[in-house]
Amino acid sequence: MKDFFNIKDIRDSYDIVIIGGGPAGAVAGMYASRDAYSTLVMEMETPGGLMGNTDIVENHPGIPKALDGFSLSERYYEHAVKFGANIKNLSCSCIEPSDNSFLVFAEQLEKPVRAKTVIIASGSSPKRLGAPGEEMFAGHGVSYCATCDGHFYEGRRVAAVGGGNTALAEAHYLTRFAEKVYLIHRRDEFRGDKALVKKVISDPRIEIFYSSVITSVNGKKRVESAEVKDLKTGDLKTVNLDGVFIFVGQTPHTAPFRDLIELNEQGYIIADESTLTNVKGVFAAGDVRTKQIRQIATAVSDGVVAAKQAEIYLSNLEG
Amino acid sequence: MKDFFNIKDIRDSYDIVIIGGGPAGAVAGMYASRDAYSTLVMEMETPGGLMGNTDIVENHPGIPKALDGFSLSERYYEHAVKFGANIKNLSCSCIEPSDNSFLVFAEQLEKPVRAKTVIIASGSSPKRLGAPGEEMFAGHGVSYCATCDGHFYEGRRVAAVGGGNTALAEAHYLTRFAEKVYLIHRRDEFRGDKALVKKVISDPRIEIFYSSVITSVNGKKRVESAEVKDLKTGDLKTVNLDGVFIFVGQTPHTAPFRDLIELNEQGYIIADESTLTNVKGVFAAGDVRTKQIRQIATAVSDGVVAAKQAEIYLSNLEG
Repeated sequence: MKDFFNIKDIRDSYDIVIIGGGPAGAVAGMYASRDAYSTLVMEMETPGGLMGNTDIVENHPGIPKALDGFSLSERYYEHAVKFGANIKNLSCSCIEPSDNSFLVFAEQLEKPVRAKTVIIASGSSPKRLGAPGEEMFAGHGVSYCATCDGHFYEGRRVAAVGGGNTALAEAHYLTRFAEKVYLIHRRDEFRGDKALVKKVISDPRIEIFYSSVITSVNGKKRVESAEVKDLKTGDLKTVNLDGVFIFVGQTPHTAPFRDLIELNEQGYIIADESTLTNVKGVFAAGDVRTKQIRQIATAVSDGVVAAKQAEIYLSNLEG
Repeated sequence: MKDFFNIKDIRDSYDIVIIGGGPAGAVAGMYASRDAYSTLVMEMETPGGLMGNTDIVENHPGIPKALDGFSLSERYYEHAVKFGANIKNLSCSCIEPSDNSFLVFAEQLEKPVRAKTVIIASGSSPKRLGAPGEEMFAGHGVSYCATCDGHFYEGRRVAAVGGGNTALAEAHYLTRFAEKVYLIHRRDEFRGDKALVKKVISDPRIEIFYSSVITSVNGKKRVESAEVKDLKTGDLKTVNLDGVFIFVGQTPHTAPFRDLIELNEQGYIIADESTLTNVKGVFAAGDVRTKQIRQIATAVSDGVVAAKQAEIYLSNLEG
């Protein structure tokens, strides 16, 4: 990643500009540059996107040895750079259509970069509670993904925070591993699917705290407890547990593309597995698009498909 | 893979039976067993499916070092087995719905295995020409995937065989790498998209042999030439080249499921990225389902999604 911050050598134009350097963006960069296209990957924040901040990934397809997300991200970057991709620390602020191509603006650049085609792979972030201790234990004791991390809590006690259908389904899923799941919901009833609510309420392994929030996550080296506040009485209770799973929503990173492209109500780019968007020449890959299952593997697949679609688009542009 | 052929310890029933042990099936097995479900993966033929027979995979996401497909397959299997999946060399012959579950028959088993849910990941195979030399050089000089192997032919001469839209698009794609592409088509005209036909015909890097077939692929250690027969005159010509790409169609492995599940005209299982099929409790993952881009990464993504869908299905079964 040696040239990651050297933005002096950025060219005026590229065949393909990719917004985001998580698994989807990095793999799109690898495929696109392997196809001999000039490719710029604009990494919006930290290398590797959400994956880059993950402590242990033990379910990465093809890599049986558990690795931290940062090391995995380095592998992705090395792979893309090997075939000629340019990966730079640039925050895209806006994309404008212009002359059968696109002008991509970045906060760090005085002039926009011209792109024949753009792949948006800017990802999404889980919403945080903002409770003390949450940030410190994020990735090792505080998780936002039950499929990723539930397996680490075999025989342990965990909290699940939230009250939507996702929180209900994930709380139930966590009972496959945890001996006890405390479901903490800020309202005094659930408004999700009735069958799902019934299943969760009747499960003896799940204990529900209604009208309650987590006010802090506590522990020394690892999570040992959470402080739970009853919003009706104001009472504080210390709940001993080993992990906290938070399911209070996601924020897709689509603010810079709001005027360019069609988003759904939650702000995700509307696109199916083809990665095609409502704008010709702009493709959406990974967590940023509408989809049901958000995992490294599903993002990576989108990266491959988007690069292939960009190739088809460019091939048609040529005549 | 030590217990791969030991089928004595197969149980009467499993939560999840997965048909096929390529990337989609193996990853589905890894995810499903990590979710603590009893899981049997029936590998239909060779370990790793199509991937297992590939000489060099240099574009596997997350693995920058080029590896042979067999080694990659071993990693996939090791990963699935690590979490408890059973992988066995069994050829599924039929699936029958029975009592809110499924009976899965295999050629090697006297009795069927009962599965609460089934993931079909049996893949597809490229159709072969049947020409002498084709089999011997398959994977190193003879390829069925331009996206996978085109990059290896930078500055070289290759043949592309076929006349459909796929063959036309891939022949054009190969000009990104090869200095010369010989397009060999058994008919005397193309019936594909007019714009695509025009682009291919007018490309000086593509030389077309109409009414012609490859009768042999020749060389010592590597491919050096192909013998091309003109079907109208019967003339034989030796064309010097470094690689042969064959695009004459695919055969999805769906014969055992014909009576169970809805297939499209080409025999693929009709399913989108959700992997849901027309039969509740049966999911289709990887090359065997209808999709546009067939790569290891897109198959792997399907494996993850199908395992997650199986989890949701089983969770609802439980009530």
